[in-house]
Amino acid sequence: MSSNYRNFRNNVPWLILFLEAVFIVLFYFVSSDDGAPISRIYPAFQDVNHMVIFGLGFFLMFLKRYGFSSTGFNLLIIALGVQCFMLIEGLLVFLLPSENEDSLTRITKATMSMTAVVISTGAVLGKANPVQLILMTVVELIVFRMSRWMNTTFLQVPDGIGMMHVHLFGAYFGLAVSSRFSEPSPRSEKNASTPKSDLLSMLGTLFLWVFWPSFNSVLVVHEKSKAICNTYFALAVSAVTAFVLSVLTTKDGKFRMAHIHSAVLAGGVAVGYTANSIEYPWIAMILGLLASVITILGSYCVQRCFNPALKIHDTSGVHFVFGLPGVLGALAQVVLFLINNWPTLPSLGYLVTIRIGAFCLTIAAALITGLITGFILNLKLFKTPVSKYFEDQFYWEVSCNVKL
Amino acid sequence: MSSNYRNFRNNVPWLILFLEAVFIVLFYFVSSDDGAPISRIYPAFQDVNHMVIFGLGFFLMFLKRYGFSSTGFNLLIIALGVQCFMLIEGLLVFLLPSENEDSLTRITKATMSMTAVVISTGAVLGKANPVQLILMTVVELIVFRMSRWMNTTFLQVPDGIGMMHVHLFGAYFGLAVSSRFSEPSPRSEKNASTPKSDLLSMLGTLFLWVFWPSFNSVLVVHEKSKAICNTYFALAVSAVTAFVLSVLTTKDGKFRMAHIHSAVLAGGVAVGYTANSIEYPWIAMILGLLASVITILGSYCVQRCFNPALKIHDTSGVHFVFGLPGVLGALAQVVLFLINNWPTLPSLGYLVTIRIGAFCLTIAAALITGLITGFILNLKLFKTPVSKYFEDQFYWEVSCNVKL
Amino acid sequence: MSSNYRNFRNNVPWLILFLEAVFIVLFYFVSSDDGAPISRIYPAFQDVNHMVIFGLGFFLMFLKRYGFSSTGFNLLIIALGVQCFMLIEGLLVFLLPSENEDSLTRITKATMSMTAVVISTGAVLGKANPVQLILMTVVELIVFRMSRWMNTTFLQVPDGIGMMHVHLFGAYFGLAVSSRFSEPSPRSEKNASTPKSDLLSMLGTLFLWVFWPSFNSVLVVHEKSKAICNTYFALAVSAVTAFVLSVLTTKDGKFRMAHIHSAVLAGGVAVGYTANSIEYPWIAMILGLLASVITILGSYCVQRCFNPALKIHDTSGVHFVFGLPGVLGALAQVVLFLINNWPTLPSLGYLVTIRIGAFCLTIAAALITGLITGFILNLKLFKTPVSKYFEDQFYWEVSCNVKL
Repeated sequence: MSSNYRNFRNNVPWLILFLEAVFIVLFYFVSSDDGAPISRIYPAFQDVNHMVIFGLGFFLMFLKRYGFSSTGFNLLIIALGVQCFMLIEGLLVFLLPSENEDSLTRITKATMSMTAVVISTGAVLGKANPVQLILMTVVELIVFRMSRWMNTTFLQVPDGIGMMHVHLFGAYFGLAVSSRFSEPSPRSEKNASTPKSDLLSMLGTLFLWVFWPSFNSVLVVHEKSKAICNTYFALAVSAVTAFVLSVLTTKDGKFRMAHIHSAVLAGGVAVGYTANSIEYPWIAMILGLLASVITILGSYCVQRCFNPALKIHDTSGVHFVFGLPGVLGALAQVVLFLINNWPTLPSLGYLVTIRIGAFCLTIAAALITGLITGFILNLKLFKTPVSKYFEDQFYWEVSCNVKL
Repeated sequence: MSSNYRNFRNNVPWLILFLEAVFIVLFYFVSSDDGAPISRIYPAFQDVNHMVIFGLGFFLMFLKRYGFSSTGFNLLIIALGVQCFMLIEGLLVFLLPSENEDSLTRITKATMSMTAVVISTGAVLGKANPVQLILMTVVELIVFRMSRWMNTTFLQVPDGIGMMHVHLFGAYFGLAVSSRFSEPSPRSEKNASTPKSDLLSMLGTLFLWVFWPSFNSVLVVHEKSKAICNTYFALAVSAVTAFVLSVLTTKDGKFRMAHIHSAVLAGGVAVGYTANSIEYPWIAMILGLLASVITILGSYCVQRCFNPALKIHDTSGVHFVFGLPGVLGALAQVVLFLINNWPTLPSLGYLVTIRIGAFCLTIAAALITGLITGFILNLKLFKTPVSKYFEDQFYWEVSCNVKL
Repeated sequence: MSSNYRNFRNNVPWLILFLEAVFIVLFYFVSSDDGAPISRIYPAFQDVNHMVIFGLGFFLMFLKRYGFSSTGFNLLIIALGVQCFMLIEGLLVFLLPSENEDSLTRITKATMSMTAVVISTGAVLGKANPVQLILMTVVELIVFRMSRWMNTTFLQVPDGIGMMHVHLFGAYFGLAVSSRFSEPSPRSEKNASTPKSDLLSMLGTLFLWVFWPSFNSVLVVHEKSKAICNTYFALAVSAVTAFVLSVLTTKDGKFRMAHIHSAVLAGGVAVGYTANSIEYPWIAMILGLLASVITILGSYCVQRCFNPALKIHDTSGVHFVFGLPGVLGALAQVVLFLINNWPTLPSLGYLVTIRIGAFCLTIAAALITGLITGFILNLKLFKTPVSKYFEDQFYWEVSCNVKL
């Protein structure tokens, strides 16, 4: 059984090379000549790029024998995915009467969309091989673009907000894909972290924490400063709450590193949709507090009840790290909209329905296409044997038995 | 004896949660609505934030069994401290006829003020538990703000310079607090570094080195470019001198990593007060050289004579890393002021006294309040047993005996 | 034999201190007073500084027992080299009728020039001691400045492009210097990486990858945005190709970390000369693909045929990581120039010759002066014994037998 993927592996590089050649040829046709002036977006793009390449790459490095693959494959799929996204956008310019953006803005959007894919890979971390990851990248980017397009066109979601659905989409797509993968043996020692891998993961987490305000504000046109401050406060309260809840939920009153990793970022995710519209920082702070609570309590419910019931194995816990705070943020957006426009707007019910619809559409699209993708990825041709899960040695030349 | 803190620990999260709730409620009252335009300060704020969260977090990661706590508690106290500082500033707007700054500038100042606290935690690294750290954070922020206010109001210190007292204040406050803590057993193996922890600490040091020019220039209004260049040159000469003196002061003529960590940054600290007023880079370079010399020679005197005499145990050596270069910078500021205005100014003696007074005030405030804080922190209620010093396992769930 | 350098070592710090004193004195004479406004270059300078200090420092950290020296000596030579470069420029202002730049632009150019030196140190990594590195730094900076001056004056190479010769110059200078060093024993275990050192090296590589667009665009005046995008696409295709070729060239179809480290950056090097003149991204992408192919195939030829034949030992493989992609970029520049101006320019042959001449001049200058430098560095006085190669313990106080 192990030989299936092994035999197939000889064809893998040719497949990727073919894909890359197709990309270059297509770029020949779609590349636009934008005589844009020096783009002001560059520093913010740099921050987002740093987050995705470095921050998420190290954030996912908590498995003790999967460090090479965590960072390496992350770089591979982002390099491929950004090109793929540029082509999709290039094609859309022909099909849709949308404005032609400058290249740098488009690369920034591509990198942000890749966050969805990287979040999804978190759910199948250690279980999916590079071919599966690449297929997933291409499919997910296309579907996420379609879902954003539907949100923008039919549900009047502004594009900046539509992009923030990235966490929600990534988490639920990843979960759906993950549900089709074989579960690893619960006694497997490899699916665990060591203090050293936890520390490297903390390194990535701190990078994400520092750069998150850039992520939430890069596409914001007005009130950028407000978006930055609100995100900062939400993150700060999340961090404090994460420490508090970690002590409360572990026996013996100790901190657990995994809680800190997952919950310090929850505020940034939750405040994404409303960062530039929240008037007062205390609202962002409450949102950060709730997000952190939901993440840590969610991690209990999800890992003990939800996942075993549905036979889902979610390696990095993307459901409670990105999914649940995303849902909270979505609800918060609706509630804040309701409060702000309570007696004044006549068609309030309609507008609220529209907003709720946008999130349901994203989640539904993610779940359905994720399930289909998961099904395709687990055709016998692509499958990695369960015994090779969470193991760098299956993919990388390593001199000795690596353990972080 | 160990059980004192352990029993108390169950109340810790509720205390923090209560503090956080109070913060959110107070934010409701003080939050200002600033319709500020896109803040130009954001890239510089990002650099400072990066320095404090990531740079200082990893800079303090040199103890072999204290990596989780070094970075984790650093994040916790910064997240709490920044909120606390925002509230203090918010209250001051009511009390003092000061101008209302935009939020981002205020967060930047909060992050810079937190540097004082993080420096102080360096002195008690491995000895203070989270409750002690949080109490210290709140007290130190309030006292430092008061000391800055006295400097600005009574001694006409410009606010940008007043903020640079942060290293001096942090170091002497930390020392005073540290003097009230029980000394660890001198035979303790845990109070040491391993090559790997030294390397991670080097990672933090390099980050601090790279971003220091941003720290010294962020609040500078005029001559920002000069502040950046002077800081860069002071840091460069410091780095070179650190290597030279490390070879000269160790037997067998080898480099010692601890020397490099502590002395490469000395120039940046020393040049802080005068970065934008030094006319020629060679002055900054001489200052960097002297700062590095003082740090390494100081580390000898302090560790061999001063600390044993006063029974102070200064884990990270903040006295010679931040304290002594800060004093040098203060003297340099006075000397440069004297040279520049020698025959012209009539009231020179008065102005010089004022300037010296500002530094003495900062140091005195730090020492006195530090001693009081140290006394309070070492009430039996809060105390960690000496046997649990420098040990992640006392605070964190770690699978095995962690050693970096 | 070992005692030669050991005895000499006692004089080393005095030598460096003397050099630093000379620098400070010279700075007194050359320092210019530029009343420049807030420099817009600062964020880009910060990126380049980050790349050189941190990115290259960790990029070179792949040897298992040479981590302290990789980062430490890197910081030392950059701190010295930047000062040295500022003095050279300061002297040139007197000698040449060139415009007087502001300090920050000059520091940026100094940092970029130091890239050449750091690349050269990669070739002698683990073999050269600090004295040799410092001598090499001073000589190489002077020669590279002369080579740039000849390019600008006689061959009309714009200064922004001349600076991009830095990879080419660094690689061939390093190779020439390396050829004069004794080869380490091929059975030496120390000249190898461990998974952990590979991971730290990956950390540096990711930083370089993220910041490379800043490096290629910082000196570009027009079309900065185009330079950024082209570099990004070249890097993205390089990364993908690196993974593909790594699988194709290793037996058993696994990835090799060393391939990834070296080839993901090739596109950035190759596209350096033409980043702002390439019209369409697909051209940059093809260049990135070719650069990656040349790097990985080159690594085979160079390590198996070229190096053994010429008895060169190139520790970090700078020949194929920076040298060959640099040559490719040079050729690409000529070819693109030919295609763009094919029938229109009358003196095309002359202009092409000039362009080819510029690269040949750089390579020739690098090789000749590198050989001479290598010869001087290997005088008995400076030499490190071969048995002490790749060993932190020879230079650093390390408690135990360090192994990353």
